[in-house]
Amino acid sequence: MIIILKSGATDEQVDHVVEKVESLGLNAHLSRGTHRTIIGVIGDESQFQPEQFQVLPGVSEVIRVLPAYKLASLDAHPEPSVVPVRKVKVGGGHLAMIAGPCAIENAERLDTIAKAVKAAGANILRGGAFKPRTSPYAYQGMGEEGLKILREVGDKYDMPVVTEVMDPRRVELVDKYTDMIQIGARNMQNFTLLTEVGQTKKPVLLKRGMSATVVDLLMSAEYILSQGNPHVVLCERGIKSFDTSTRNLFDVAAVPACKALSHLPIIVDPSHATGRPDLIPPCAMAGVAAGADGVHIEVHNCPEEAMSDGPQALLPDQYTKIAGQLRQLAELMGKSFG
Amino acid sequence: MIIILKSGATDEQVDHVVEKVESLGLNAHLSRGTHRTIIGVIGDESQFQPEQFQVLPGVSEVIRVLPAYKLASLDAHPEPSVVPVRKVKVGGGHLAMIAGPCAIENAERLDTIAKAVKAAGANILRGGAFKPRTSPYAYQGMGEEGLKILREVGDKYDMPVVTEVMDPRRVELVDKYTDMIQIGARNMQNFTLLTEVGQTKKPVLLKRGMSATVVDLLMSAEYILSQGNPHVVLCERGIKSFDTSTRNLFDVAAVPACKALSHLPIIVDPSHATGRPDLIPPCAMAGVAAGADGVHIEVHNCPEEAMSDGPQALLPDQYTKIAGQLRQLAELMGKSFG
Amino acid sequence: MIIILKSGATDEQVDHVVEKVESLGLNAHLSRGTHRTIIGVIGDESQFQPEQFQVLPGVSEVIRVLPAYKLASLDAHPEPSVVPVRKVKVGGGHLAMIAGPCAIENAERLDTIAKAVKAAGANILRGGAFKPRTSPYAYQGMGEEGLKILREVGDKYDMPVVTEVMDPRRVELVDKYTDMIQIGARNMQNFTLLTEVGQTKKPVLLKRGMSATVVDLLMSAEYILSQGNPHVVLCERGIKSFDTSTRNLFDVAAVPACKALSHLPIIVDPSHATGRPDLIPPCAMAGVAAGADGVHIEVHNCPEEAMSDGPQALLPDQYTKIAGQLRQLAELMGKSFG
Amino acid sequence: MIIILKSGATDEQVDHVVEKVESLGLNAHLSRGTHRTIIGVIGDESQFQPEQFQVLPGVSEVIRVLPAYKLASLDAHPEPSVVPVRKVKVGGGHLAMIAGPCAIENAERLDTIAKAVKAAGANILRGGAFKPRTSPYAYQGMGEEGLKILREVGDKYDMPVVTEVMDPRRVELVDKYTDMIQIGARNMQNFTLLTEVGQTKKPVLLKRGMSATVVDLLMSAEYILSQGNPHVVLCERGIKSFDTSTRNLFDVAAVPACKALSHLPIIVDPSHATGRPDLIPPCAMAGVAAGADGVHIEVHNCPEEAMSDGPQALLPDQYTKIAGQLRQLAELMGKSFG
Repeated sequence: MIIILKSGATDEQVDHVVEKVESLGLNAHLSRGTHRTIIGVIGDESQFQPEQFQVLPGVSEVIRVLPAYKLASLDAHPEPSVVPVRKVKVGGGHLAMIAGPCAIENAERLDTIAKAVKAAGANILRGGAFKPRTSPYAYQGMGEEGLKILREVGDKYDMPVVTEVMDPRRVELVDKYTDMIQIGARNMQNFTLLTEVGQTKKPVLLKRGMSATVVDLLMSAEYILSQGNPHVVLCERGIKSFDTSTRNLFDVAAVPACKALSHLPIIVDPSHATGRPDLIPPCAMAGVAAGADGVHIEVHNCPEEAMSDGPQALLPDQYTKIAGQLRQLAELMGKSFG
Repeated sequence: MIIILKSGATDEQVDHVVEKVESLGLNAHLSRGTHRTIIGVIGDESQFQPEQFQVLPGVSEVIRVLPAYKLASLDAHPEPSVVPVRKVKVGGGHLAMIAGPCAIENAERLDTIAKAVKAAGANILRGGAFKPRTSPYAYQGMGEEGLKILREVGDKYDMPVVTEVMDPRRVELVDKYTDMIQIGARNMQNFTLLTEVGQTKKPVLLKRGMSATVVDLLMSAEYILSQGNPHVVLCERGIKSFDTSTRNLFDVAAVPACKALSHLPIIVDPSHATGRPDLIPPCAMAGVAAGADGVHIEVHNCPEEAMSDGPQALLPDQYTKIAGQLRQLAELMGKSFG
Repeated sequence: MIIILKSGATDEQVDHVVEKVESLGLNAHLSRGTHRTIIGVIGDESQFQPEQFQVLPGVSEVIRVLPAYKLASLDAHPEPSVVPVRKVKVGGGHLAMIAGPCAIENAERLDTIAKAVKAAGANILRGGAFKPRTSPYAYQGMGEEGLKILREVGDKYDMPVVTEVMDPRRVELVDKYTDMIQIGARNMQNFTLLTEVGQTKKPVLLKRGMSATVVDLLMSAEYILSQGNPHVVLCERGIKSFDTSTRNLFDVAAVPACKALSHLPIIVDPSHATGRPDLIPPCAMAGVAAGADGVHIEVHNCPEEAMSDGPQALLPDQYTKIAGQLRQLAELMGKSFG
Repeated sequence: MIIILKSGATDEQVDHVVEKVESLGLNAHLSRGTHRTIIGVIGDESQFQPEQFQVLPGVSEVIRVLPAYKLASLDAHPEPSVVPVRKVKVGGGHLAMIAGPCAIENAERLDTIAKAVKAAGANILRGGAFKPRTSPYAYQGMGEEGLKILREVGDKYDMPVVTEVMDPRRVELVDKYTDMIQIGARNMQNFTLLTEVGQTKKPVLLKRGMSATVVDLLMSAEYILSQGNPHVVLCERGIKSFDTSTRNLFDVAAVPACKALSHLPIIVDPSHATGRPDLIPPCAMAGVAAGADGVHIEVHNCPEEAMSDGPQALLPDQYTKIAGQLRQLAELMGKSFG
């Protein structure tokens, strides 16, 4: 961390800052310029906050040099991590092809969709049993009954399954039925929930919040990692923007930006990022071309009857087509799936 | 709701949309123009989602005419609500002056701060016992011990108290010790938590999420109201923006914009909105001038030793000064506090 | 400026950076920590760009310590500037009350509006003769004919006048007819135009661009000041945001944020900031409460016949009412107008 | 256009809206529901503005059904346009590979860079002679001397050339020397300049403004098209966002979003979109994978000596590598360049 003093900072103020630094078990390296004094702070930056120095009299600015996350950083793990979701690997050349309906609605429908996406190349089945809906009056999901269906259909088609958990009291239940636990965008900074899933041994699919920076996303991953669970897969799914022509703003540059900072795999979710079926295929392609470790797409065989997010789902045929194109692109990128 | 059909929509498609509308117990009012067919949907708009029609073949656009929230709307309650926090009223000419430290650190310090803000005119005491921190390595709060201190100090100075809850499993505990329960910005769409506090009888201070629209905020209020708890106070505390000169973007227009849609009181939090002590007083003034029903300000007598957010706290003297100015402004606005 | 080297930077790279710094006539102050080397650059920061050092091998980050603007800064002029618009003063306790129609439509209508706003307390008359319209098919303004009308009506009511210029070839013409020249939000970074108005002696009303930071705004002011024209009044008029409930996001904190960095007066324009007549009065109040040096409001006596932006104009009666409230608030703030 | 009346709108108000619609030579199609009256407006929507109806008493909302642009729309030209830049085609399967330095600095350097990018596959040479700099103290470009160098080097390597114009008074000059005229992001809504380049016959490279929606971009294209110049190439180059990890936010979904609305070719500029050399290759790949008709990349053989934007330029070797990868990806997409 670098502490820049104000131009008129007194010797007393400078001394006070140095004392504070040293009282935290850190080393202060003082540099007096003609206009400004600068103090370099040497030590583990993840263990203290810039605000602790920002507040001191005479301090103008405090700048982090090292990241506030540690376990998520390339320093901790210089090689890209490969996260195992049962026998499917995510990262390091292996693409996660996650597909399935927004919400699990009944066994028959999930079976039909799973069969189709499996045939197209999907290797992880998704489906929501607990749905985060902005309206209290909207469909909230099947709950445990949905989890059972997901488990059965996943087993039938030999696909690991992923589903979202919203309530820390249900992490144990969700853990019991699934192979990967999803934290949704709205809960990316639900620190209670992050801590809870960090205490399971299941891989976590961590979706980026709509107003989260890349660093915020890594800090949330750090919460999970710091509890002892090393299996986190990040997911870019669109952030807030002023242009309403898409539901969110698909930040494809976040893929290489995360990889420049962290060893964790990162996938893209063009369904939620755009909210428009016509934009899902080109954005899926863009994500993989930018280096993503997988693609999450919602698929429904009868969008009209979907209980949630029907308009943004691809039909099975559309999924088959884009999966084929992604397979060719993956090959060009030296990657593969299935 | 208005459903606009695509220019080439077939009669069959139009009929299908009408059937769908009617199958939901709603009335369809058909209007065939030379270029476009439009279907007006008559019924309770809070009970269904635009996506249910958006997905139908031949549909171009679906537009809500009535809001998706109901209990939070002016239709449900045309007069401004007044929320009682013990004997302090919030709304309808009564300003909530909420003040206190970011985190409760010990009894003595909270006592000192409470005494000062009470003398300056604050009428509700705040203090965090459970802190949502972006880093898992940062101070997380005193927990129940902090709640006890908050209760005792509040009682000593005859001030109702408010504190944040993050975990649905602790709502009961927090409910036991406090007079008002805060939902933080990061949990504004934690629907599990909203449902839980909706089942208490305590007033809820609902902070706007950093990427939430005014309508999103009202939808989250609706979650609480729909559980039977009518006592919600909204809080504008800054949203995400591209300009980093302030920590967040203080959206003062959200105050009258909410009042144009809802009967719920809305206060402002210039501490979190700006993150800069020099901007807190002018933004507090701006909030009240725009019609806010209260002001939430963090105050600390020794920011340097604060465990959290020290740099954005006002000193007791600074609080006394701005409280005096706010009192004069309130009078000009025909309002009062304390 | 502070240059932070990468952790593995070689001695050769460090030397190279120092040479570069010195070759620009600046002094380098070297500070070698155990993990990082930091170089303080001493000299006039407005004369070089961070990118000149960012590009050097071994450099991790370059941080400005002093602002990139100079004449606009408080260092250059520690007291608030007062800008004279003929006999109306703006800044330093004097509020600019700028009012008038979006577009000048004919002499009679402008006369009617001017008479009303003058009576209400407005002290500067506005009206557009050249209109920046997003559609090439929309009304583009009366041109020189409009300027003549504006001049005549301003003289009749003894009000200085302000109008927008969009084309550098018309600066001379606009300068001839008006007392203050407006640069619109869309042209805030039209450097050709800024340079041109900087070469006149007329006060300039510089509107903040929709994606401009506070610092960007001050850099654009610097363009004008650097040409020898010291009379710049800044204007906050809303920036882009994800919430479409208002046309733009009124950034009221920009008022004190600018004052913390610059001596230039800053006014607010709640008409463009919100685009909603019902929000104009509360946001005008908020602006003055936050310390603004004036308020710009569009007024039209027959919005229905307005050639441009009718829906966001106040009626003369509405203007009279809010002007009265602003007068009381100004008094509370120790300021006055008219 | 659809006009939705307020729930309490009187018959008189409805009649008044209908009269207004008809007075503009349009047809009104009235639909009275039990709760709301809706008026469909039939006619050429590009010729009037929603605000003209929004302002009428009793009107709640006005919604465009047809776009406000006309010549840029797929209705006007259902097939993708191919824009000829001398003998290089842009669009319809032909990728523009635009490369060169940010600023033209001298003939020798431009020659070196041009030779390298030509060999790598670039087919249009770029270089700035007039530079839009946020600081008045920064390097502003070589002016006409730079244009001459650009022309000579372009001719030597048989590459058409493109350069930015900022001043309407210099459009004629720039037209004389170049094959394609660039409108920079900061001037996307400089309507004076758009009109001026619309009166040349040169292809225009129109960059998206930092706060412009996709529709805003098409409206600016419409300005050029409406002057009689049909040759517009759009360019996505990043928009404003809250995440500062990249310079701007690369909106790759804008590529297919534009293609869903317009026949105009659209290319991507990952140099300006990200401002980070390490992110340029993955974002270039993403752009082409999403369907872009070309890639604009800044290349410099000695970034350290660049007069502008050195840190975001690729080295010639880096350009050669990414151009090779883009060639393979283009082939996969059924496209080609050079």
